[in-house]
Parts: sequence; C-alpha cells; structure tokens
Amino acid sequence: MALIQPRVLKGFRDFLPEDQIQRERTLNTVTKIFHSFGLQPIDTPILEYTDILLGKGGGETDKQIYRFTDNGDRDVSMRFDLTVPFARYMALHSKDLPIPFKRYHIGKVFRGENTQRGRYREFMQCDFDIVGTDSVPADFEILLIIISSLKALGIPNFTVHLSNRGIFNSMLENMQKQDLSTEIMRSVDKLAKIGEAGVKKELNEYLSPDEIEKVLSFVSAKESADATLKNMEKVLGNKTEDILRMEAILNLAKSLDLGHLCRIDPAITRGLDYYTGVVFETFINDLPGIGSVASGGRYDNLASLYTKEKLPGVGASIGIDRLLAALDELQVVNNEASSCNTLIFCMDEKYFPEYFQIADSLRKSGISCEVYPQKKKLGQQFSFAEKKDIPIGILCGEDEFINKTIKFKDLKNRQNYSGLTLDEAQKKITELLNRKKVWGDR
Amino acid sequence: MALIQPRVLKGFRDFLPEDQIQRERTLNTVTKIFHSFGLQPIDTPILEYTDILLGKGGGETDKQIYRFTDNGDRDVSMRFDLTVPFARYMALHSKDLPIPFKRYHIGKVFRGENTQRGRYREFMQCDFDIVGTDSVPADFEILLIIISSLKALGIPNFTVHLSNRGIFNSMLENMQKQDLSTEIMRSVDKLAKIGEAGVKKELNEYLSPDEIEKVLSFVSAKESADATLKNMEKVLGNKTEDILRMEAILNLAKSLDLGHLCRIDPAITRGLDYYTGVVFETFINDLPGIGSVASGGRYDNLASLYTKEKLPGVGASIGIDRLLAALDELQVVNNEASSCNTLIFCMDEKYFPEYFQIADSLRKSGISCEVYPQKKKLGQQFSFAEKKDIPIGILCGEDEFINKTIKFKDLKNRQNYSGLTLDEAQKKITELLNRKKVWGDR
Repeated sequence: MALIQPRVLKGFRDFLPEDQIQRERTLNTVTKIFHSFGLQPIDTPILEYTDILLGKGGGETDKQIYRFTDNGDRDVSMRFDLTVPFARYMALHSKDLPIPFKRYHIGKVFRGENTQRGRYREFMQCDFDIVGTDSVPADFEILLIIISSLKALGIPNFTVHLSNRGIFNSMLENMQKQDLSTEIMRSVDKLAKIGEAGVKKELNEYLSPDEIEKVLSFVSAKESADATLKNMEKVLGNKTEDILRMEAILNLAKSLDLGHLCRIDPAITRGLDYYTGVVFETFINDLPGIGSVASGGRYDNLASLYTKEKLPGVGASIGIDRLLAALDELQVVNNEASSCNTLIFCMDEKYFPEYFQIADSLRKSGISCEVYPQKKKLGQQFSFAEKKDIPIGILCGEDEFINKTIKFKDLKNRQNYSGLTLDEAQKKITELLNRKKVWGDR
Repeated sequence: MALIQPRVLKGFRDFLPEDQIQRERTLNTVTKIFHSFGLQPIDTPILEYTDILLGKGGGETDKQIYRFTDNGDRDVSMRFDLTVPFARYMALHSKDLPIPFKRYHIGKVFRGENTQRGRYREFMQCDFDIVGTDSVPADFEILLIIISSLKALGIPNFTVHLSNRGIFNSMLENMQKQDLSTEIMRSVDKLAKIGEAGVKKELNEYLSPDEIEKVLSFVSAKESADATLKNMEKVLGNKTEDILRMEAILNLAKSLDLGHLCRIDPAITRGLDYYTGVVFETFINDLPGIGSVASGGRYDNLASLYTKEKLPGVGASIGIDRLLAALDELQVVNNEASSCNTLIFCMDEKYFPEYFQIADSLRKSGISCEVYPQKKKLGQQFSFAEKKDIPIGILCGEDEFINKTIKFKDLKNRQNYSGLTLDEAQKKITELLNRKKVWGDR
C-alpha cells in the first residue's frame, strides 16, 4: 500500500517535547499567579455558531475565520479569539457567577492569516478579565497581574505602557475633531515608524498647524508619568475624570513600589477603537522589536451583542508565543532543564523488579525517574540519557544487588557515587538536583 | 439592534469555574504522575489534512468527522482522537526524539456523534505511550502509570483488567478458526449482556459444542490471575510466548505489591482488533456502570500508514470526563474547595493602597487573595465571598489602620480574629487554611 505523506498544514505546528515543556511551564507559572489573585478558570467550545462569533461582522475577521457547514447543516466556525466567546458566555451564565467575575481562559484560537508575516493559524491565547465593575482598583489589579506574571516568569526589564481612550477623546472634543478620530489615531500610530515630520505631513490634511502642535505635544510622553499627566491636563485645560483615574491607578502602583514599571504613553492608539478607558501594552526593554507581550484595557460593555445586561470590565491577554520567544532570546529559560531527573539503566534484565522498586522509592521521595525498558549496550543507554537531558543515571548490577548498595553517576559532571544505601543515594541525588534547575522543581 | 441569541452548539459545553477547576486539578494531578515517570508532553494541531486523519478510511469515523474545505481549497478535518495525529507525528519526528519515546498528550478532540447517548462532540483526551520498544517492562510501566494516576486522584477501589490479543489468537489458531476471529470476539463481548446461554447460541453457528466449551472455558476468569493463566495454558496445550509475557507483567506488579489490583480477564475483547499484545481496561469497583476509565494496550506498528519505519509501542488513555463523573459520584472531590483563600473587604475606598499591600503580603506568604474592588454594602461583599466559597474575610477599616492591626473572620465557622499584626494574621490564616482542603494546596 502506498504511504500517506506525513505533513502538517501551513501555519500549524507540532510541538516537540522541549518546546511543549517550556509552554507548559510558562502556562503553569502564570496560572499560579492567576490563582493567587482569585481569578477562576473557564472554558468554552472551539466550535461555535458563526453568527455568535462574527457578531456584526464585516471586518478582517470574516475573511480569516475557519467557517463551514456541519453534518447537521449548521453554519459553524472555529473561534478566532477568546473575547467573543467570553462575551457570549457572560450573556448565558452571568446569573450563575459571582459578580464582579474574575476569570482566566487559556486555549487555542484559529485564524486563516497570511503566514508570511511569521503568524500562525493556530495559536494559544491566555486572557484574564474582571467583569461587572467599573472601579479603578479593578483597572489596577489587571495591571498588577500583568506585572506579577512577567516577574514570575523571570523577565528582567519590562515596562507597562498605559494610555486612555477617554483622554484622547477629550482632546479631540476640545478641538471639535471627534469625527476624525480614526484618521488621527492612524497617523499618530505611525510616529515611531515615520517620525514627527511624517506624522505632521499626514495630520496637515485635516488639522491646522496649532492643532497639530497640540496633538503632537499631547502624544509625546514626558520624563515621568506625573509630568505626562500634567501635560495632558494642560492641553485639555482641566483635570478630567479620566486623568483622575489614571492618577489613581498610578498611585496604587506607587504604593506597591511598582511606579517605575509603569509609563503613561499617550502615543498608544492600537486597540483604542475597541477599548473605552485605560489601555495597557507591555514591552520588554531589552527586546523592543518583539512588540507588546501583554495587552488589554477597559471596555464599557462586554456582551452588548447578546444581552441587555450591562457588563463593564477590564482585562488583558498575555502573548504566550511572544513571551516564549522572548524567554528564549533572553536565555531566561534553562535549556538544560530535563523533563526527568534520573534514568535507571538496565544492566541485566533479571533485575527489572528491583529497578522498578528503586524507581518507586525515588518517585515517592519526589525524584522523577524512568527505567530503561530493555537490555541494550550501555553506550546506547547513555546516549538516550543525553538526548533526554537526564542528569542522573542509576547503574545497579550484580555487585550492587549482592551488596545491597546503590551506584549512580552524575551524568553532567561525570562523577560516580557508589556503596550508598538507597536512602543515602536519594538524599545525595536530591542535593545534586537542587543545585541545578530541573524539571522536578515546577 | 436586535440581540443575537447566546447559545452553544449541541454536544458542546461551556465550563463554569467550579467544573473547570476540577478539570484543571485532575489534569494537574495526572500530569505530575506523568512527569514522575519521565513522560514528555507533545502537542499537535487540531486541524489536519483529511487524508492524514482518515487513513484508509471507511469506518464509523468518516461519518463523524468535522471535515471541510479551507480558504486555500485544502481538504481539512478536526482531529477525532490523539492516536492518529501521534502516528503522523512519529513518522515526521522520530529522528529527533529519544527512542524509546515516552510521551503524553492532553487535548480536545471532536466527533459529530449522536448526543443522545450522553456523548459529547467536543471532549478532552489524555493519552500516554512508550514507543519504539516491544519490551515487557514497557507494558508494565503503562500499567503502573494507570495505577499511579488513579491512586493519586484518590480513587479508592479499582481493578485493571488485562487481556492479550496474542493469546486469544493462539486459541483460535489451535482450533483453526482464525478467519472467524471477528465474529467470535463479537459474541464473546456480549457475555455480560446476554449470558453464557446466549453466547453459546451465537457461537453454535460456527463452532462445534467442544469448541464452544473451549472458548467459554478460556474466556472465564478464574479465582486468581495465576489460575487464569494456568487455565489458558491448559486450553492452548502449552505456555506460549504471550502467556509468558502476561506472567512477567504480573510478576512485576507483584514485586511492587500491586498484584491485587490486576485481574487477567480473557473476556475483554474490546479493542482487540486494534491492539496486538496486552490490553488494559480499568474499572472502578464501586461504579462498574461507568465503564473503563483507563484503557489501552500494545500495538505492533504505530505509524505504518505514513512511514516504513517500524514503531512498536504500548499506551493508554485516561477518560477524563468519566473520571470526573466518578470522582464526583464517589465524593472524592472536595466541593467546598475554593479557588481563592481570602477576600479583602472594601470597608473604605481611601484604603485601597493598604488593601493591595495586605494582599501583596498575603500572596507572598502563599495565601491567594483578592481585593473587593469597590465600596458596596458589607452584606453584598459577604454574599460575594459565599458565592465564591472564600473561607477567610479580611475586614480592616479606620480602627485597624489607626492601631496598625488586622481583623479577619473565618467565614465558615463565623469566628472573628482581631488585634493581630499582619504577621500574626498570616500565620493564623495559614493554620486555618491547612485545616481545610483548599485550592491553595494544589
């Protein structure tokens, strides 16, 4: 019979163990942070009715969505984000949930995007939200969860950039240019790319030179967050409600000594068309090119497409793929880390019962281990251990079982230990493992 | 604008936090066991080329699969199990993997099944395998991982039923009835349902009365595993290689004092058409009706559809949905368990900085906690804590901040604690939490 060519769809990925281990660890780390804040996990289906997912439709999403007719003639689609399903979820279940509802949701989403830009068609999203309150402490808590997560992952230098849709709007209202908000935001967004001169040229089409100066003064961040807010107040002519909220968020950050990680950055316009209040983007200082690794903001009304119940909220999304790339580039990740602490070599097949007993005892003392399942040349077993990056090898044969001792080898430092009791061996192995960063520590 | 009716596709499910927490915990528990055995995680795409998933095709699967044409005119389908994608994965990546390769894979699969039988169209599978070896210790290790996982989950009484396709085949060969294996297995499978008389009547169509006696004697389990194997030997006339393998698996189980959890059950025929060696099914003794919660077996050649490389292996699948139902029915699950240990009540909005500082300190000492994000009536905050099943409430207002003390309430036992320093409060709370089983203990 002819073989079927094994292959993976363009834009989709297999994960080899070393990558999947890093992904699992990263998700475990952020999940622990989420739990420490009382966020609760939810899950929704990957497949939904198309009208639920597309809502009003008409955007870029329509072209990218995986949509088909199922065997029951239903028009269905694979979810393209976790926000729309969450809105539908809240419309269905808000009566059964504690409000304010704090959730997180980690899952795969699907977009038939152009893969040439290094984008994937299947990728993991990790969202968290506080819904049912418009309070400032909720805004701050989302900021704090972003900061706590990145710290827990070991990212050394990062800054959360904060902006506010409401303040931007007030500026436009001041100039009576609300109707041009999309165009102006689009131009301002190019500041880093085309420079001040380029932006000026673009804004020249709809604004007077005075107005252009105002906009550019407004969107340039000052030396400190306080100074930036002061400048906004000056441009707007008074301290608006939104400026007061930004101040309050900043003061809460300062009270936990986190002020230096936050930057008011009025040039952030991405997402401003969706959000209605504070907006977050998070950049790794040493890797600006990688883009924001955690973004979010406040919205007025989550589920207005599906329910009349008003659900204001604030949330963010951690970019797991970007973060993994960053951790790799920053070498924060310990690539040495193995999925398993010890390999029990098969010196003689008649000792399998003893090998499994040793393995059982090691596992009970918290040391992960595997038994090599058949008699092969020792060299082959050593290279297996090397390929799996296992740091300790237990080498017990005739001599050891007669003398009731354990012999093992530190495979990294090529040092042998012998004549130990099982108990002594376990203690020594634990000691050696604690010196290295290994998988067992999760 | 008209609202879109929020709804979920038939056979698909939303998970509310309490259910998702149990699912996460269960998966965490088995994942820890997997790691302790050196199993490595992998992942594959949810969408694949249809020819990869359907292989030779022609079965029930073809009708149940979610299949469509994507925007690039590719014939694609959503995976219906984790085995076929794993076979394709091994064909693509075996050169980059340590062999024997020990993997686990947890993910969603999709089948357009009839939902009336209580089946879901989207469900979680949890598979693990050792591939690239035909050794007995690998067979035993899969058995051991099943046993260790169920023990770790707190299932009190269970039995792993073992059978062997090879032994069944030898019996048929002895009678020169190999060509009737499908029909005979199908009849034997009904033993529990239609009784011995019913099976006899069916077998009567193809077998002589002597042969029927032989088959029935063969498939009836004796009082002990040893006696069952002895009986098999008697029926076959000699101790075949397969009987020796079953004996060896059993002896390894006995050497770890696990013999009593294993039962040789020659009546197991389900899956015998797929597997080629040992077969496992696992039943919870107190809940026989729930069916097997962990099943698997040995196969000759995993990836023969995609590669000429021969990959024998052994594996099993844990039925997460069934196990969750069982844990619930056995009340092994602590339903009291909360996702969060403490709620910091908002007594006065001016103290938010202090509330966040207390929360930060509690989290650093391992106590999960959340700050109620706005001023609401105390009663409303108490019922929020009750709805989220939070056991401790911190109630600090003017008095406490003037005196620099902490006041908190054990919400379960309605006991108040006051006048404590933050440090004292943390110690007391930790003590109270350790008495209960709470989310923080995962």
